[in-house]
Amino acid sequence: MAGPEIERLIQLLARLPGLGPRSARRAVLHLLKKKDTLLVPLAATLREVGETVHACDTCGNLDSRNPCGICTDSRRDEALLCVVESVADLWALERAGVFRGRYHVLGGTLSALDGVGPDDLNVDGLIARMQSGKVREVIIATNATVEGQTTAHYITDRLASQNVQISRLAHGVPVGGELDYLDDGTLGAALKARRPL
Amino acid sequence: MAGPEIERLIQLLARLPGLGPRSARRAVLHLLKKKDTLLVPLAATLREVGETVHACDTCGNLDSRNPCGICTDSRRDEALLCVVESVADLWALERAGVFRGRYHVLGGTLSALDGVGPDDLNVDGLIARMQSGKVREVIIATNATVEGQTTAHYITDRLASQNVQISRLAHGVPVGGELDYLDDGTLGAALKARRPL
Ligand SMILES: [Zn+2]
Ligand SMILES: [Zn+2]
Repeated sequence: MAGPEIERLIQLLARLPGLGPRSARRAVLHLLKKKDTLLVPLAATLREVGETVHACDTCGNLDSRNPCGICTDSRRDEALLCVVESVADLWALERAGVFRGRYHVLGGTLSALDGVGPDDLNVDGLIARMQSGKVREVIIATNATVEGQTTAHYITDRLASQNVQISRLAHGVPVGGELDYLDDGTLGAALKARRPL
Repeated sequence: MAGPEIERLIQLLARLPGLGPRSARRAVLHLLKKKDTLLVPLAATLREVGETVHACDTCGNLDSRNPCGICTDSRRDEALLCVVESVADLWALERAGVFRGRYHVLGGTLSALDGVGPDDLNVDGLIARMQSGKVREVIIATNATVEGQTTAHYITDRLASQNVQISRLAHGVPVGGELDYLDDGTLGAALKARRPL
């Protein structure tokens, strides 16, 4: 139909979440219409992101610096560590602007169904971060799903022997809800009313 | 929040039709997760498409060749010319596989509201293509919208002095409907039952 390069571009774009074949075709036509202002900058930025952005060795955040901008920001409280499932959840908390400590990204949740065990999550890295003695409180901000709660319990057990306070986001996070879908107010309230475990 | 490269990528992706800021963020995380199999090939393909794909000087189709693959395909009937509003509509007809002639892309429709006049559409190019004497029939396949029908009438008038038969896609295209949203069967039926103007 269209040339092979265009077909290939449609197929690649159709693999993005939220886009199917039809919207990918529309996206390609839009990109070609806005070649100088959208297609060329997008190609360059994708390439730059691909070459420079990596997971932070300390916290798992995605950044062009390693350790990342959050881990090296001296204005942020290194005594407070917020454990999240994913970078998407870290971004959600940052957008809400309600947390001024640092993060630890697990990279998923325990799930027997999906075959995700403790070794598949960055829990050892979390324990290792306790060795500095600087972390006073670990706030577990996994999602309020069954897997998120199972993971929270597991982490609580693993941290039991450490000299840190452990807390959990307050209910306020709707049961079954995911952080990335919550408004800033709800996120802020849940963080403020966090309860010790 | 995230680094400036990531923020820029989110902003660019959010400008694609069908994606908003939230889905753009999810797309970026997905791209970074599938860096080697999706992000890198997408950046390269975007760049290649940006550098090689242009509008065909003959018909307005988008292709890396000029004249395009359709214009130079000797198996296609050069006596049949199908006039469409956009490359999206050309793609829709090609996907349906119901037309084996060639195309002419107008690049829009007449619209007093949007300030689109005859000079903004590639109508002169269409008239010029009649000079070869090889085109026997022009099938006007503009959308069944008010603008599409106004444009069809205008083109019919412009072609009146040419020695060609003019036809229009049969009703079968739902009134108010756009070609790009139709199933192949409807498109094929509408083409077969096209009526002379
Ligand atoms: Zn970090
Ligand atoms: Zn062409």
